[in-house]
Amino acid sequence: MRILGVDPGTGICGFGVLEVRKKGAPVLIDAGAITTPAHTPLKDRLLDIYDSLHEIIKEDKPDCVSIEKLFFLQNITTGISVAEARGVVMLVAAQAKLPIHEYSPNEIKKAMTGYGHADKKQMQEMVRAYLKMDEVIKPDDAADAVAAAIVHSMFSEHS
Amino acid sequence: MRILGVDPGTGICGFGVLEVRKKGAPVLIDAGAITTPAHTPLKDRLLDIYDSLHEIIKEDKPDCVSIEKLFFLQNITTGISVAEARGVVMLVAAQAKLPIHEYSPNEIKKAMTGYGHADKKQMQEMVRAYLKMDEVIKPDDAADAVAAAIVHSMFSEHS
Repeated sequence: MRILGVDPGTGICGFGVLEVRKKGAPVLIDAGAITTPAHTPLKDRLLDIYDSLHEIIKEDKPDCVSIEKLFFLQNITTGISVAEARGVVMLVAAQAKLPIHEYSPNEIKKAMTGYGHADKKQMQEMVRAYLKMDEVIKPDDAADAVAAAIVHSMFSEHS
Repeated sequence: MRILGVDPGTGICGFGVLEVRKKGAPVLIDAGAITTPAHTPLKDRLLDIYDSLHEIIKEDKPDCVSIEKLFFLQNITTGISVAEARGVVMLVAAQAKLPIHEYSPNEIKKAMTGYGHADKKQMQEMVRAYLKMDEVIKPDDAADAVAAAIVHSMFSEHS
């Protein structure tokens, strides 16, 4: 099974594709971030996210999408733009007929690190250790997207 | 010039197409709401908004889009889903290469009624009066979308 994890955002949208095998450790197929230069108009950022995600799905052929649930906004302005990007991410998943799984930030942090308030550095480090990589995945947004994919693989193993 | 006004939302997404003529009063070409039954999954709602808006643009051929700016959320849960829908609306406008104009709720209310805190009923009534219609436009979401289109016509007249 291949899981596409996404960490939505309009300035930077992280993604990671994880292949989960019946035997052996999960393998990271792809990870990165869709970025647009500062001051790019929102509509152009959304277009870029839409086109890039369709491209990633075509290329990496995931079976499902795992994405962070949004139900609390730390910063209202950033939160609104994250939700705008998230709408486009969910649209692309729906157009590609991929099931969407949602996990709260706390569920993801708790599953990855054991507690719900891990910071960005701890998350990056746990993702690195979990995948037995030499270096942490950069940027954080890509590591967060991979974490969402890992957490779905954990939860679906137990279901 | 034809202006497509949109009042985004995932449960109900209002729209209205206004034709502004050099001479004579503006004419309402189309107005309505894209609705999905309660408990429809978000991804299916977003798909419906995407497809329906592309259809409306193809049919009514607007020259630009006018939409409410979101920068404050009265209700966090509704606000997030409005932003998710708004992301899809802006994506569709960008794909159709239509310029997007944004007005704050207060700008729209103030331009329509003279003050920034008009309620839904007052807005519906002002839209009805402005367009010299016999009945108010229903639902409110369609009237709000038409109001966004009217306000853009007012602002662009003076620019």
